[in-house]
Amino acid sequence: MVGTSMDHKLRHAARTYGGLLIMGVAAIPIGLIIGAIDAIFGRALLAIGSFRDAHLIFLLPFLALAGLAIAFCYKTWGKNTSRGMSLVFDVGHGREESISLRLVPLIMGGTWITHLFGGSAGREGVAVQIGATVSHWIGRKLPFKHPGNTFLLIGMAAGFAGLFRTPLAATVFALEVLVAGRLEYRALFPALIASLVASATSGALGLEKFEVALTATVSLDATGITRLAILGVVFGIVGGAFAWCLAHAKTLAGRLAPNPYVRIGVIGVALSILLFALWQGRYCGLGTNLISAAFANGATIYSWDWIAKFILTIVTLAAGYQGGEVTPLFSIGASLGIAISGLVGIDPLLCAALGYTATFGGATNTLLAPIFIGCEVFGFSYLPAFFIVCAVAYLFNMDKSIYTLQERA
Amino acid sequence: MVGTSMDHKLRHAARTYGGLLIMGVAAIPIGLIIGAIDAIFGRALLAIGSFRDAHLIFLLPFLALAGLAIAFCYKTWGKNTSRGMSLVFDVGHGREESISLRLVPLIMGGTWITHLFGGSAGREGVAVQIGATVSHWIGRKLPFKHPGNTFLLIGMAAGFAGLFRTPLAATVFALEVLVAGRLEYRALFPALIASLVASATSGALGLEKFEVALTATVSLDATGITRLAILGVVFGIVGGAFAWCLAHAKTLAGRLAPNPYVRIGVIGVALSILLFALWQGRYCGLGTNLISAAFANGATIYSWDWIAKFILTIVTLAAGYQGGEVTPLFSIGASLGIAISGLVGIDPLLCAALGYTATFGGATNTLLAPIFIGCEVFGFSYLPAFFIVCAVAYLFNMDKSIYTLQERA
Repeated sequence: MVGTSMDHKLRHAARTYGGLLIMGVAAIPIGLIIGAIDAIFGRALLAIGSFRDAHLIFLLPFLALAGLAIAFCYKTWGKNTSRGMSLVFDVGHGREESISLRLVPLIMGGTWITHLFGGSAGREGVAVQIGATVSHWIGRKLPFKHPGNTFLLIGMAAGFAGLFRTPLAATVFALEVLVAGRLEYRALFPALIASLVASATSGALGLEKFEVALTATVSLDATGITRLAILGVVFGIVGGAFAWCLAHAKTLAGRLAPNPYVRIGVIGVALSILLFALWQGRYCGLGTNLISAAFANGATIYSWDWIAKFILTIVTLAAGYQGGEVTPLFSIGASLGIAISGLVGIDPLLCAALGYTATFGGATNTLLAPIFIGCEVFGFSYLPAFFIVCAVAYLFNMDKSIYTLQERA
Repeated sequence: MVGTSMDHKLRHAARTYGGLLIMGVAAIPIGLIIGAIDAIFGRALLAIGSFRDAHLIFLLPFLALAGLAIAFCYKTWGKNTSRGMSLVFDVGHGREESISLRLVPLIMGGTWITHLFGGSAGREGVAVQIGATVSHWIGRKLPFKHPGNTFLLIGMAAGFAGLFRTPLAATVFALEVLVAGRLEYRALFPALIASLVASATSGALGLEKFEVALTATVSLDATGITRLAILGVVFGIVGGAFAWCLAHAKTLAGRLAPNPYVRIGVIGVALSILLFALWQGRYCGLGTNLISAAFANGATIYSWDWIAKFILTIVTLAAGYQGGEVTPLFSIGASLGIAISGLVGIDPLLCAALGYTATFGGATNTLLAPIFIGCEVFGFSYLPAFFIVCAVAYLFNMDKSIYTLQERA
């Protein structure tokens, strides 16, 4: 009896670990493919951003027209893919079977157009959705019996990792984002492998990693911890407010202008004017200009930069433009960090780094991902500071998330 | 209507955040008290260890007698506190109301006696149980309406943090250990504060932190990652095997000798002989001698050190001696790391560090705690290596845990 039960256990273990290993192997080509797509998408996006900055006056006036084109494409070929990240979450929670591959060219093109004509939006949503779509599609072709949402998570991780070149943050992001308070450990091993491969692939294909070497020292005495906690409260509330405002702006825009052409056309015209009037395109695109300014000693960050970027990103996304939220959130947080560093008495660059990552955490309702992003972008030695600020931000974000279908454990 | 609902939401938020803040404030004295107890317990234990090493020949022969004394104390005054960590888990899962405060002197004294007479055991179990008991007791006196297991977790974190002076690892350990695959985020903020305070307190009271500055560089190319993954498999299996063997050894000892006096007496005599015969007490106590040897260039680690410590710790704990498992696990992992570093082609000290933490992770079925312990003991810059090895170990530990009442999400 004992022998049989032992034998049964061993066979079960062999199957489990065999499955794990095979999934780990499958994660390698998935990481390669998604990393390569990320490299194409990301490099083109950066080139488009530079081109736009150089020719802003010829491009920004056509933002509304560009919006109509995006709305047309989605209306004509989009099926349900315009639901974007919500569709990914539906598949993750088992409410949808699959994501149409047509999402990939649509969101990639839509984002390029959004950025070419000066919309204020991000890029991670694209990478994560492409990763999820491609990986889930591949997973359905493979003979795994009960893969559940594992391939989706592998793809989300790889998409994030390939774009930002932060494989550890990408892995924990994919594991924790579907359900707040739960980690989908099942996908840990293949997601880690896919992330490492995707990051290496996009790196080899010339997508650079954004990194900043900080020099500030963090004091973890009572005063230092209190300062970090105050920053956590601020960044958490701003992140949560971003998620809340975005959701309400989308609802409001949809109610005021149910027709997507009218919506994107009217808001697009307003955006063209606003984006030009406010410092000639300073708030167009990803916000990497603000991030660069925040971390370049001597460059200028205005005290209102964060709120301008906050509002214009929300308006851009509520209108129906494509992209994502994360890079704008990085820039909002970094600008806010610079703006309040004097008040809190923390080195401005360190404060910007803390804002960069904790505001993202507050808006996505994630804890580990922002801690790891902080480490991978600004150096692992700052982990204690990132931990404290992101933990507090996680608690003070009013439990909001830009991913409205995120569940609670 | 909207106004009322908004008002309601704001009041709810104020209550939630007010509660959070109050809990954070309550965590400060809890951290102070538990940090102080940890300092007394930990410093006395280190002194006892040195005293024993200096007078081994006069102490080790009385290990069986010491065991009888421990059994007598628990039988006479113990109530159900001999269940130790299982009792903590029962309270954590809501199956028990409270832990008697008598656990504190009993487990502290029992552990001191175990170590004075040469048993091979740990110390973290003591610190975590004391922390959990004291904090849960305090929580029940405070007027929180539904604290659930929050105070228990705060205490577990503070106990761990005060003893090892690793506040971040302690925080995530408390959040993740009750249920594998779930993080008890509710306790994050107060647990973090209590951990920071407990660590600072025990430090101020002279309990030193074990730290090693590594100099090896980690390569994260395909070969490097493969090597790390292989280490993860090995450490995960050894950690899981430790948990499995300990559980079965306890069951077996209980079946062969249902009377606790007979059990601890007979095994105690055998242990006296074995512990002396095997290199004159090399495997007595916490195993910090092995850890020191592993990280001191030029000191000797035998290839069998890890398995000797493995077996003798399991026998000591199965007999009924007090202590814990974690420090022996650190020493088992570090010794094993040195032993296999040549085979895997990884710098011995780095390999020892990876074994130190990943074997602990494998045996406790935790992921984040070992990653953070690695960072806090050996340096944050090694986080990627710790992440990879601990993630693999977490998956390859056969889902075993020394905490047999750990649940699965």
